[in-house]
Amino acid sequence: MSQPKRAQVPASKGVLAEKSGLRVRDRIMRAASDLFYARGIHAVGVDAIVSEAGTNKMSFYRSFASKDELVAEYLRTEEREGWHCWDETVAKYAGNPRAQVEALFDVLATNIDPKGARGCPLANAAVEITAPDHPGRPIIEQYKAGMRRRFRELAREMGSRDADSLGDALLLLWEGSYLTRLTLGQQGPVQDAGKAARALIAAYTDS
Amino acid sequence: MSQPKRAQVPASKGVLAEKSGLRVRDRIMRAASDLFYARGIHAVGVDAIVSEAGTNKMSFYRSFASKDELVAEYLRTEEREGWHCWDETVAKYAGNPRAQVEALFDVLATNIDPKGARGCPLANAAVEITAPDHPGRPIIEQYKAGMRRRFRELAREMGSRDADSLGDALLLLWEGSYLTRLTLGQQGPVQDAGKAARALIAAYTDS
Repeated sequence: MSQPKRAQVPASKGVLAEKSGLRVRDRIMRAASDLFYARGIHAVGVDAIVSEAGTNKMSFYRSFASKDELVAEYLRTEEREGWHCWDETVAKYAGNPRAQVEALFDVLATNIDPKGARGCPLANAAVEITAPDHPGRPIIEQYKAGMRRRFRELAREMGSRDADSLGDALLLLWEGSYLTRLTLGQQGPVQDAGKAARALIAAYTDS
Repeated sequence: MSQPKRAQVPASKGVLAEKSGLRVRDRIMRAASDLFYARGIHAVGVDAIVSEAGTNKMSFYRSFASKDELVAEYLRTEEREGWHCWDETVAKYAGNPRAQVEALFDVLATNIDPKGARGCPLANAAVEITAPDHPGRPIIEQYKAGMRRRFRELAREMGSRDADSLGDALLLLWEGSYLTRLTLGQQGPVQDAGKAARALIAAYTDS
């Protein structure tokens, strides 16, 4: 899931350098995360990252073997935060898988900063990272495979006739919600995603 | 809709230069289209494009004012081809909106080269192009708004109780299908998209 805080584009160059207590590596990670999310992975070079982090290339390469390694680290962090957000959302409705799915879709429709939400950072990275041997690829694929498993598991817990199909259908709605936010905005089709999810659940569970 | 032919990554550098009868501008467009689709817009620079097209930067800038203008032209071409594919698909089932939607989803599940399909070129561009004043942005937004209108219109023709919601739900499945192909492959959840579309249509039309 995307993080509202990621919607904040850094206000000015080198602003992170002013924050005391952050090590260089952490400053680089934070600057890179903000820039990658806001502008894309390929559009942001090491120069822009070190400038934003208030450091230099030498320090960068002491912390990361390559930009690709930094990208992989960024994706691992986003993966952790995505699951954290998911777990927090479903925890409120423990034992009620239908309410859990509804709550997840509600987050997509309502709980995002409308000014800058750029969808799922890992799905976006799947569009950008095309080299099969990029260290970020397995992280993306593992994250989305995990999401597929979770939706299928929720469908099973609901007693769906065809839990794998229902789970996959929910994942399609979910991923489509991210993508339409980028083209038709936060007030576009994503607002109907929860309704569509409810209709699918009813269709697959005889209720 | 994505074009199967786009899945072909150029075989070798400069191969297009050997094709007689293609003007420089056309060679640049064709090389750029293949490279943008296969590797992404930001990952491909003017140098790579002119090399693939068998020309040089001077010729490039005689044909295009900037890379951004070339990207916009690429997106306009993909938009035309996308609608052409859509129109061809629905023409076979004129007067039967339900069969038209089913045929569209069948194309997603079956009619794509499994080796290289990279989803919808315009949706991918929405992930990459973040500057609001990029000349490609309005083309992407217009294309997806047109797709939304078409799905809503098909839902209306089906006699759906809530045609706008059904149309939007179908668009969410559609866009999610593109995105999951990039993360979970052609044999992943996209294979269940048609089934999910049928379930949604049934749920929204009392049949």
